[in-house]
Amino acid sequence: MTAARSSDPRPRVTLLTDFGTADGYAAAMKGVIAARAPGVRIDDASHDIEAGDIEAGAVALLRYWRLYPAGTIHVVVIDPGVGSARRPLAVEAESRFLVGPDNGVLGLALATADDWTAVEIANRDLLPARISNTFHGRDVFAPAAGHLAAAGALDALGPRIDEVRRTELPAPRRDGGRIQGVIIAVDRFGNLISNVPASWVGRDESVRVGGQDVGRLRRTYTVVPPGELVALEGSLGFVEISVRDGSAWERLGTGRGAGVLIQ
Amino acid sequence: MTAARSSDPRPRVTLLTDFGTADGYAAAMKGVIAARAPGVRIDDASHDIEAGDIEAGAVALLRYWRLYPAGTIHVVVIDPGVGSARRPLAVEAESRFLVGPDNGVLGLALATADDWTAVEIANRDLLPARISNTFHGRDVFAPAAGHLAAAGALDALGPRIDEVRRTELPAPRRDGGRIQGVIIAVDRFGNLISNVPASWVGRDESVRVGGQDVGRLRRTYTVVPPGELVALEGSLGFVEISVRDGSAWERLGTGRGAGVLIQ
Amino acid sequence: MTAARSSDPRPRVTLLTDFGTADGYAAAMKGVIAARAPGVRIDDASHDIEAGDIEAGAVALLRYWRLYPAGTIHVVVIDPGVGSARRPLAVEAESRFLVGPDNGVLGLALATADDWTAVEIANRDLLPARISNTFHGRDVFAPAAGHLAAAGALDALGPRIDEVRRTELPAPRRDGGRIQGVIIAVDRFGNLISNVPASWVGRDESVRVGGQDVGRLRRTYTVVPPGELVALEGSLGFVEISVRDGSAWERLGTGRGAGVLIQ
Repeated sequence: MTAARSSDPRPRVTLLTDFGTADGYAAAMKGVIAARAPGVRIDDASHDIEAGDIEAGAVALLRYWRLYPAGTIHVVVIDPGVGSARRPLAVEAESRFLVGPDNGVLGLALATADDWTAVEIANRDLLPARISNTFHGRDVFAPAAGHLAAAGALDALGPRIDEVRRTELPAPRRDGGRIQGVIIAVDRFGNLISNVPASWVGRDESVRVGGQDVGRLRRTYTVVPPGELVALEGSLGFVEISVRDGSAWERLGTGRGAGVLIQ
Repeated sequence: MTAARSSDPRPRVTLLTDFGTADGYAAAMKGVIAARAPGVRIDDASHDIEAGDIEAGAVALLRYWRLYPAGTIHVVVIDPGVGSARRPLAVEAESRFLVGPDNGVLGLALATADDWTAVEIANRDLLPARISNTFHGRDVFAPAAGHLAAAGALDALGPRIDEVRRTELPAPRRDGGRIQGVIIAVDRFGNLISNVPASWVGRDESVRVGGQDVGRLRRTYTVVPPGELVALEGSLGFVEISVRDGSAWERLGTGRGAGVLIQ
Repeated sequence: MTAARSSDPRPRVTLLTDFGTADGYAAAMKGVIAARAPGVRIDDASHDIEAGDIEAGAVALLRYWRLYPAGTIHVVVIDPGVGSARRPLAVEAESRFLVGPDNGVLGLALATADDWTAVEIANRDLLPARISNTFHGRDVFAPAAGHLAAAGALDALGPRIDEVRRTELPAPRRDGGRIQGVIIAVDRFGNLISNVPASWVGRDESVRVGGQDVGRLRRTYTVVPPGELVALEGSLGFVEISVRDGSAWERLGTGRGAGVLIQ
């Protein structure tokens, strides 16, 4: 990690929250980070996660955390339990840092990491004298991110911990000639993203979702006419169900949690 | 101020507008700023303020302006009177800069500053030859911010002025054993933020809003069950009324301007 | 161009997409760009373009692309035909770069450029080994932008091409004493932006849109009372129809494509 940090002297912080922007909460976090690490670059990942939707945040994080260069600090504050006993975490994984509450929102990303080291953010010397009970984004997570962005050590933040809460996504199952999966996310375009790796699916197997046959896995949207359903390998490597130039979510009236059957 | 600027050679500009992003207006401002101060970091505070909602912008600004490091330039363009006689301002306060129209949107932040110096942006040498009557964000405020970000002097922008328009937020009143306040903002989570400092409220006093008793001030959301009303000290230090894992705004059907009674 | 690049050693990339932010797609693009050009500044132009609305993206781009300094790399991914035969483009125009699909989204900006050089992004050595068929933003356009941001040469990306697809905006017509135009965009404030240059309109000519007379071209919103219709020269230099402190789009019930008559 030390090597990774020194090879990029310009740290980068990303922010993923359910704060929206209009109230100034996200900007408050940026201000705290910038005050502790003046030269830092801050990228908004999103502030538009549905309020309290830990699973949606976990899936979004999965889409970008490892694409950023080594040394990047990813801050994730979707934190309906703020002020309760859930621990604030800072984690180093695959030469990136993840900072956020221990409520599962980091868990999906960590499940894809070979190895990680986690600490509980607990060192009061690095935090403001007064910590609100409603806004740990500003008072706990942003100071921790600023510390890391200023090349501070992970271990200075607090004691090591061995267990981090996982997000419980259902695993796809192979059952004889059938694969049973589930829709884990619906994106802005109404694409239904399943938990089934596209690599599991044979050439002649057919995808069924919400009681509707979508046919076999195709290569691109444009092999079907506009308005038609199509199953594809999505950008996460999972089977996705789409409508070309439309919304599979609207068409099928089905979303997160819906079963997917492939045979 | 000179000291503050030289200690951070990498200026930072924040933007708060009611422009949305989809029309390219916010990006036009960023381009103008970047053209005048190429190395500048630009943080979006928000572009999602309700169109023309000066008070909401003023409250949002309050949440972050002083958390940013000295030298930061905060640009605020919520400007329903663009093209009219209202003056364009640049202000130095507590080693930060505030740039925006003199319509009250900067007034709440300035009311919390010990001291400030304001100028009217009037030096045509620093502005484009042609200034539109509908987009001073691009043609007046962004050039002024770019000038400051390139380490230009405040006084070069125009003549000093002594008075800046304040935002008229009602003040809370103590009346014998009672405190009368008002809801000044509703955030994305449906929290109702009052103008009553939490420090005014005694341990045994009870909060009432919209004809409903919310009980005494508690420490965290999680002392009540999900779905229940709770009064808290919010992150601005004011009394807030929330619903745990829900929206007090939806529950109570009341918002900005509603009376708060504490006794 | 070489001169322009060396005069600003800190490249800047802007992103315009229809991805929203909540799914993490926009952040994935930022991560790829940052990984290839670590010191790069990335500005969000917008991720809120309506899904697949190429014309809206083209108009938004027009508002900012040339205001950014020389050397800026503007990435535009509104790409309903992703995975089909449409070509991925990188263009150098007026010392800026434009990167996006060849579907017209860059065409309006290029129509205002004196000169440009375009290449098809085709050099597999600069792209990931595996390119998804659904997310060229991450796998094609972001890598190309990262290459340019790291001071890579345009021609290294692929072969020169001579033709780029234009956006077909209707041209305004002069017809004796009359001008016939059309509404090309509606902004967040409900302003109706026409394709008629304000410089074409005489002092005594009157603007008509959606069957309603709006009167002659005025200087500012504030010459009419709140709630009244007014025609103005907008910030792009075109005739716009507005309602002071309101929405012309709501008032007139008319939008993109509506005819404008000036006589």
